[in-house]
Amino acid sequence: MKPLSLIDNIMLFMERPAQPMHVGALCLFRPPADAPPDFVSRLAERLRQSTTTAPPFNRRVVRHLGIRFWEESADFDLAQHFVHLALPQPGRIRELLAMISRMHAAHLDRAYPLWRAYLIEGLEDGRIALYAKIHHAMADGVSGIRLLTQAMAASAEDSLAMPAPWELHTPKGGRRSLPVPTSALRSMEALRALTREGVTGVRPVFARMKQTLRDQRGGHPDCVGSLQAPPSIFNRNISGSRRFAAQSYAAARFKAVARRFDATSNDVVLAACGGALRRYLLALGELPDRPLIAAVPVSTRRDNRDSGNEIAFALSHLGTHIAEPAPRLRAVKACMDYNKAVLRTLKPAQLLAYEGLMFAPGALNLLTGLHRQRAIVNLVISYVRAPRRPLYWQGCALHGLYPVSLIIDGVALNITLTARGDALDFGLIGCRKTLPHLQRLLDDLEASISELETATP
Amino acid sequence: MKPLSLIDNIMLFMERPAQPMHVGALCLFRPPADAPPDFVSRLAERLRQSTTTAPPFNRRVVRHLGIRFWEESADFDLAQHFVHLALPQPGRIRELLAMISRMHAAHLDRAYPLWRAYLIEGLEDGRIALYAKIHHAMADGVSGIRLLTQAMAASAEDSLAMPAPWELHTPKGGRRSLPVPTSALRSMEALRALTREGVTGVRPVFARMKQTLRDQRGGHPDCVGSLQAPPSIFNRNISGSRRFAAQSYAAARFKAVARRFDATSNDVVLAACGGALRRYLLALGELPDRPLIAAVPVSTRRDNRDSGNEIAFALSHLGTHIAEPAPRLRAVKACMDYNKAVLRTLKPAQLLAYEGLMFAPGALNLLTGLHRQRAIVNLVISYVRAPRRPLYWQGCALHGLYPVSLIIDGVALNITLTARGDALDFGLIGCRKTLPHLQRLLDDLEASISELETATP
Repeated sequence: MKPLSLIDNIMLFMERPAQPMHVGALCLFRPPADAPPDFVSRLAERLRQSTTTAPPFNRRVVRHLGIRFWEESADFDLAQHFVHLALPQPGRIRELLAMISRMHAAHLDRAYPLWRAYLIEGLEDGRIALYAKIHHAMADGVSGIRLLTQAMAASAEDSLAMPAPWELHTPKGGRRSLPVPTSALRSMEALRALTREGVTGVRPVFARMKQTLRDQRGGHPDCVGSLQAPPSIFNRNISGSRRFAAQSYAAARFKAVARRFDATSNDVVLAACGGALRRYLLALGELPDRPLIAAVPVSTRRDNRDSGNEIAFALSHLGTHIAEPAPRLRAVKACMDYNKAVLRTLKPAQLLAYEGLMFAPGALNLLTGLHRQRAIVNLVISYVRAPRRPLYWQGCALHGLYPVSLIIDGVALNITLTARGDALDFGLIGCRKTLPHLQRLLDDLEASISELETATP
Repeated sequence: MKPLSLIDNIMLFMERPAQPMHVGALCLFRPPADAPPDFVSRLAERLRQSTTTAPPFNRRVVRHLGIRFWEESADFDLAQHFVHLALPQPGRIRELLAMISRMHAAHLDRAYPLWRAYLIEGLEDGRIALYAKIHHAMADGVSGIRLLTQAMAASAEDSLAMPAPWELHTPKGGRRSLPVPTSALRSMEALRALTREGVTGVRPVFARMKQTLRDQRGGHPDCVGSLQAPPSIFNRNISGSRRFAAQSYAAARFKAVARRFDATSNDVVLAACGGALRRYLLALGELPDRPLIAAVPVSTRRDNRDSGNEIAFALSHLGTHIAEPAPRLRAVKACMDYNKAVLRTLKPAQLLAYEGLMFAPGALNLLTGLHRQRAIVNLVISYVRAPRRPLYWQGCALHGLYPVSLIIDGVALNITLTARGDALDFGLIGCRKTLPHLQRLLDDLEASISELETATP
């Protein structure tokens, strides 16, 4: 038995009836061409034969004297964690997304290891779906996707020999990302470590802070500070109900725009999201004058190889105040370039400390929910890298891998995408009550990408 | 907007992550013989066309200045409340029960009216299922079943003209029952009213209390007092996961046994449950020496017609300490006869006051969870009367109407049955973690009934 880390504890502490703290993913698969009609039932039956469970899948939270520990559960109850489901007729993607929305709203039971996987049949196009969720105290979005993809193989044949996902041991990444920029706590640790290095370790942090605050006061258009996000419908308290929308786009479309604008694909993703959000909010009559601010996780990985998930949050505006696509993309790129310049001047530990100090007031708001009007961000846009090669699971080809992330009071929308093969798989999760017709954002996104494709740099 | 009653508030107050406070019911229907293959999809589509919603189905809880009110919600979101689902292959009853167990464990979202109905297709025998749940702050088990059956008709043809269940206005019953014997609060009210009648109103209450306490101290075998229940596996804290089991039995079997033993069908039901629980607990090596105590709701309705749901709890032992079926039934009958004698000496208001005073210590335990070792009861066995005539819903014949009740910390099992047509429909709901293999209780129940059928009075 190992006590929970501070971050694991925060993830459990932040959980409220309307705010479950698990992350998930929806995978779509194409069964083999010669699959019999009872293919999925047989697959479910085969997976149910599984008798071993590797960490973290066998770990549950227990309390002793008020302290929480991870206990490796001996009496593992597979039927509690692996569920076979079917879509009702006609089995369209919209029925699937409605089902995922409902399932993602339900809490995991703390008496058991905090994960569940659903194998879903009945899509009209013959594909099958796997939806899995895991508590953020057990895995973050990045490691969650890794837990799924490591049970897949590069060929249909090899994949048949792979064990069930929960039979594969997965060590937890060293530092894990938070679903929202609440790095204040982690960064205190970083700051303490830096002060041990003496003044040379700490000085760049404060120099950078001074510069940022000066840029912010001077109205530097590319510098986004803490507490600069405009009030918006995304910054309300959330209900316990969710709406999930998902769509794949060809990565080549983003790359082509990026090439023409001398930007990165990531810049194009952010500008496309900005354009989509602008359309969506205009239709609702809810577009703020000032640009929406997104928390955008960026990797701080340099050369040290064991820091799997070193992720910092950058704040980027999304150019939602700019009607034309080309100037919007240029503005977003400039903001991200500013962020990268900050990243470059600081070492990872320094960056953590810098972020913690800069975001502390907003992060405190998010954690405690004390003062939600002063938003640190309007939404989170996140990014997970999956293997580039084609993947197969239990004989089926992977067709889509959509993150189903989490939202919290004051941040009612999360857009996470997976870069997989030649596609970007977007997963949008929002509060059903706060954000009407979330699925329209997918149409808006398509329109926004098309607009960028024809825009002149 | 109307403030919530005290009992409604208690129902919300008692809700915890592992203890949702809704009740439900599972209906099984046989579609018409000439039903097309897309019968259920069409039915779902027709129900989705519904545009009106009657109270209580449009009521949600809102808070103003710390006080909770019922608000009639104008922006009604039907897709949040009515869900079309399908069972995975092979569509056996066990897959259905597993699905209901999972759905009953999920909380209702307080941002919306607190109910949801699921129409389920895909049973291998061609039947369809309707599972509905509603928060106990909106309806108790009895009114919940009424909400469902009032949307049904006496013939298949008439039932096609009936509106959706949520379109029918249902006034809330006057006094409502609690899912557990927590009548202390209600009875304080009754006591206050009685004292206004002067000493003639209160005297019988205290006289009866004295007698009961004297019987209890004297070891009267038929008198079950508060805090007399033996510690058992049912009196543990519950997990958030459930197991639901359901089965119909011919009412005639119980009546035949009752006739031979000069008992009531209700006595036979309790004795049969006692026999089943004895088998179940013996197999687990968990049978207490002293008999299990069940809270058994009994109607206190006399002549006054507007007291729809006047229900008091009687405590009955279940003869689980007696191996032979005949003496077990005789002992259970004697205990229930004792309870009825108490009922007869007191007027309804007096009975409420009596119960409140007798059960106050145990009820306080249940409400606060302070001192759960001292169990007031081991389980709840409850009873709901449905119409005797055959019922039809949307062209389909009703085949089963199984209550899916609720459990709380310290009372991890609830057995509720519906008397419907010629059948008794048993619904068993228990904590998945605390009670292993709950479905075995159904086999044990069958064995226990058979045993009574062949027993010599």
